[in-house]
Amino acid sequence: VADKRFYTSTGPLSLDQIIKISGATLVKTGMNCTIEDVQTLAASSKTDLSFLHNAKYVEDFKKTEAGCVLVTPDLASFAPKGTVVLTSPTPYRAYAQVASHLYPLTPGSMETIPPKELESQGVIVELGAVIFKGAEIGTGTFIGANAVIGCGVKIGTHCHIGQNVTLSHALIGDHVTILPGSAIGQAGFGFFMDEKGHVTVPQLGRVILEDKVEIGANVTIDRGTLDDTYIGYGTHIDNLVQIAHGVRVGRHCVLVAQVGISGSTTLGNFVIAAGQAGLTGHLTIGNNVKIAAQSGVMRDVAEGETIAGSPAVPVYQWHRQTVSLAKLAAQKKEKSGDK
Amino acid sequence: VADKRFYTSTGPLSLDQIIKISGATLVKTGMNCTIEDVQTLAASSKTDLSFLHNAKYVEDFKKTEAGCVLVTPDLASFAPKGTVVLTSPTPYRAYAQVASHLYPLTPGSMETIPPKELESQGVIVELGAVIFKGAEIGTGTFIGANAVIGCGVKIGTHCHIGQNVTLSHALIGDHVTILPGSAIGQAGFGFFMDEKGHVTVPQLGRVILEDKVEIGANVTIDRGTLDDTYIGYGTHIDNLVQIAHGVRVGRHCVLVAQVGISGSTTLGNFVIAAGQAGLTGHLTIGNNVKIAAQSGVMRDVAEGETIAGSPAVPVYQWHRQTVSLAKLAAQKKEKSGDK
Amino acid sequence: VADKRFYTSTGPLSLDQIIKISGATLVKTGMNCTIEDVQTLAASSKTDLSFLHNAKYVEDFKKTEAGCVLVTPDLASFAPKGTVVLTSPTPYRAYAQVASHLYPLTPGSMETIPPKELESQGVIVELGAVIFKGAEIGTGTFIGANAVIGCGVKIGTHCHIGQNVTLSHALIGDHVTILPGSAIGQAGFGFFMDEKGHVTVPQLGRVILEDKVEIGANVTIDRGTLDDTYIGYGTHIDNLVQIAHGVRVGRHCVLVAQVGISGSTTLGNFVIAAGQAGLTGHLTIGNNVKIAAQSGVMRDVAEGETIAGSPAVPVYQWHRQTVSLAKLAAQKKEKSGDK
Repeated sequence: VADKRFYTSTGPLSLDQIIKISGATLVKTGMNCTIEDVQTLAASSKTDLSFLHNAKYVEDFKKTEAGCVLVTPDLASFAPKGTVVLTSPTPYRAYAQVASHLYPLTPGSMETIPPKELESQGVIVELGAVIFKGAEIGTGTFIGANAVIGCGVKIGTHCHIGQNVTLSHALIGDHVTILPGSAIGQAGFGFFMDEKGHVTVPQLGRVILEDKVEIGANVTIDRGTLDDTYIGYGTHIDNLVQIAHGVRVGRHCVLVAQVGISGSTTLGNFVIAAGQAGLTGHLTIGNNVKIAAQSGVMRDVAEGETIAGSPAVPVYQWHRQTVSLAKLAAQKKEKSGDK
Repeated sequence: VADKRFYTSTGPLSLDQIIKISGATLVKTGMNCTIEDVQTLAASSKTDLSFLHNAKYVEDFKKTEAGCVLVTPDLASFAPKGTVVLTSPTPYRAYAQVASHLYPLTPGSMETIPPKELESQGVIVELGAVIFKGAEIGTGTFIGANAVIGCGVKIGTHCHIGQNVTLSHALIGDHVTILPGSAIGQAGFGFFMDEKGHVTVPQLGRVILEDKVEIGANVTIDRGTLDDTYIGYGTHIDNLVQIAHGVRVGRHCVLVAQVGISGSTTLGNFVIAAGQAGLTGHLTIGNNVKIAAQSGVMRDVAEGETIAGSPAVPVYQWHRQTVSLAKLAAQKKEKSGDK
Repeated sequence: VADKRFYTSTGPLSLDQIIKISGATLVKTGMNCTIEDVQTLAASSKTDLSFLHNAKYVEDFKKTEAGCVLVTPDLASFAPKGTVVLTSPTPYRAYAQVASHLYPLTPGSMETIPPKELESQGVIVELGAVIFKGAEIGTGTFIGANAVIGCGVKIGTHCHIGQNVTLSHALIGDHVTILPGSAIGQAGFGFFMDEKGHVTVPQLGRVILEDKVEIGANVTIDRGTLDDTYIGYGTHIDNLVQIAHGVRVGRHCVLVAQVGISGSTTLGNFVIAAGQAGLTGHLTIGNNVKIAAQSGVMRDVAEGETIAGSPAVPVYQWHRQTVSLAKLAAQKKEKSGDK
């Protein structure tokens, strides 16, 4: 359910309204015809609308408790009892249309909290910081000059929010550090693509930073589409790292500068990713995995593995590949006789 | 011609002044001896000074309508009739000296537009946003807290300019979104290098964002040197992407996080570049090209190709290379008998 | 010695206090028992505490003039005469505890310099810029809207500090340009890792930018841990580049967009690193080295070399590897007979 601190629903919507907005076809009625929110298949309850656009999630579909699901015609038969089924050739697009209707983009209140009010609560606020009404900030927390804290953002105690940082749609624990220029909580890179162009999908999740997270300068962490983006206790993130929507990073991880993690990838605890490593989306990386600098990770990685290269392979294999290629090139040289 | 909204010329300059400033040698006189502006060979008219410093552009030189051209002695003979020719061993440096003289770096007016004035025109302005006199902003557009909008910048209707964004030297269409922390319109990375150090080349172009462009957080888009940097209708750009001066991106492209595109490269429509891909300068990438994550693109790519690897090759070839290298490394292992 | 403009010591500390804070064991007494500061082995004097946690620096240890050194038991015997030796299984952690005690994180003064006062000194200050008391700014320098200049920062004459830039713990020469959104001088990515989590190590150095340095947009340059981070005269740094703590870049270097340089690596003069290249830490790169785009540099590079690839090798070797791999893949294709 979209967090009311950040999102205001125009719902509920009747089934008729949903059909009209999405252009989808009703193929199976069910117990409920009133939709209050949108949600993933796995997290839905009977007042939620969800969607299936990737056969990979068909098991979630079979077990969903969603009141209504948008799906392609070929997968409609997997629907559980009691769920209303709407079919569409492009269920993600149809979902996006309903979600945009339910949560239209509207600027929040322009009202800000006077710094004096925060200072009286033990918050240190430098000049030029803009803190919108509805933000909650714990005692002993420092807000740097010209930082911007959005409505509904919650920051714990003894945090350090650097200068020129922008925070929105985020819930932040205690003793968290964010260095200057980072942007956290903005909309993720989510849209439906087809030959007619792109339809933006509303981003209705949040960013959660647990206690003692440390984040460098000019980092970007997008909020989730429906699930939250999540950074676990004590994790350290270096400068210019990109964390996409719905990524989950475990406890005590280390992400070195310029690492990029694509949407919905999950990292275990004590994972280390060295500089400029990139991870594609929807991966599962186990605990204690070590990822070498500039690696390109395109598959799940089991607990404790060390990987390197692009595409990334176990590090001993990467070393052998490097040596083999060097030898091969040296042979060519000898044969051809040129330098 | 440099856009008067952003640049103020100290010209015109006489031929004698140009010779004095640049240290170049007059080898051919022509019809015109007064220069009002600087321009590329292709776009010049008879009151413009241009330069040829790369034999690749000799065809442009042959056809140029520039009043005066700086060129190395060996290429001087390709000049068209009527064009004044000045030779220099380092024509780009000579050009930079004239351009710097014509357009000295001077801070603009310090005057800003009072937020109330903008609000009366239907613009939503959060606290701390600084909008310089001479900016034009359309109705329904949102300007986030602590954003900075430079003099002469034009923003259409119903745009969303995020918090802590910096815009200068840019013309922006309708329904454009820019997320927090992005910097758009600053000077490109242009200088003349030799053993004595670097001479900065004035950056006199603009950034053009067409309607419905969406730009992520902490993105950088430099303005052009002479040509504009251009992003086509409906293109989506993710966080931490770098777009260098003079790049042209077509319609409905998708540039995923941490992609970098070097100067003057042109992308067609519906091009997709996945995360951390890099493109060198002066390339032409056709429509519907797909570029895999972490690719290093160093050559032109024909319409519809899918490429991967660094240096990038067609994706099926990259797969074969990956498999071949893995097999080669496995053989070495068997032969040597070690693990 | 930590620069008093930026850091306030709670010292001196007695040997007893250090033992109590660090949990280390006294194995050798010496001439001095009072510690005023922390420092590297090479730069220490007799009132400094230092540490040895990497056998690579044992030669520095043998010659150190530090009053007191934290070291693992196996290396304790290399201590020079007169130095107090404390052993710990984790000397870097023990050091971090003492350094944190000596330099606790405390927000500086909230007082800012009124823009009018700076303007009377010939500084141009745009609206919304926040300049903390104790900053020194030279005549003819421009400070962009919503930039933040920390206490103790020194900026020379005729500099251009872009909008939304954040500067702290930095000493900046004359004619320096910094484009919008860059963050310079924040704490580096320094911590002690073990199975219990991470202990942050205080970052007590500075960033030094020599005259005529030019820095792009959304760049990050961290201050040093104990040594300074240093950028030499006339060096040009493009957008989204990451410079870690303790990096030293020589004169007239060129670092193209999205390059990343890890901690304590040293570059000579006239080094060129093309886009997205990455350098690991503690390397020495000679004068006039050229590093190709997307290279992964993992070893020292001798003067004048041109390198490419990941891991980076001499460029002619990289070309041969690329050709060899393409041929190998083509052979496989012929043998297997498929496309």
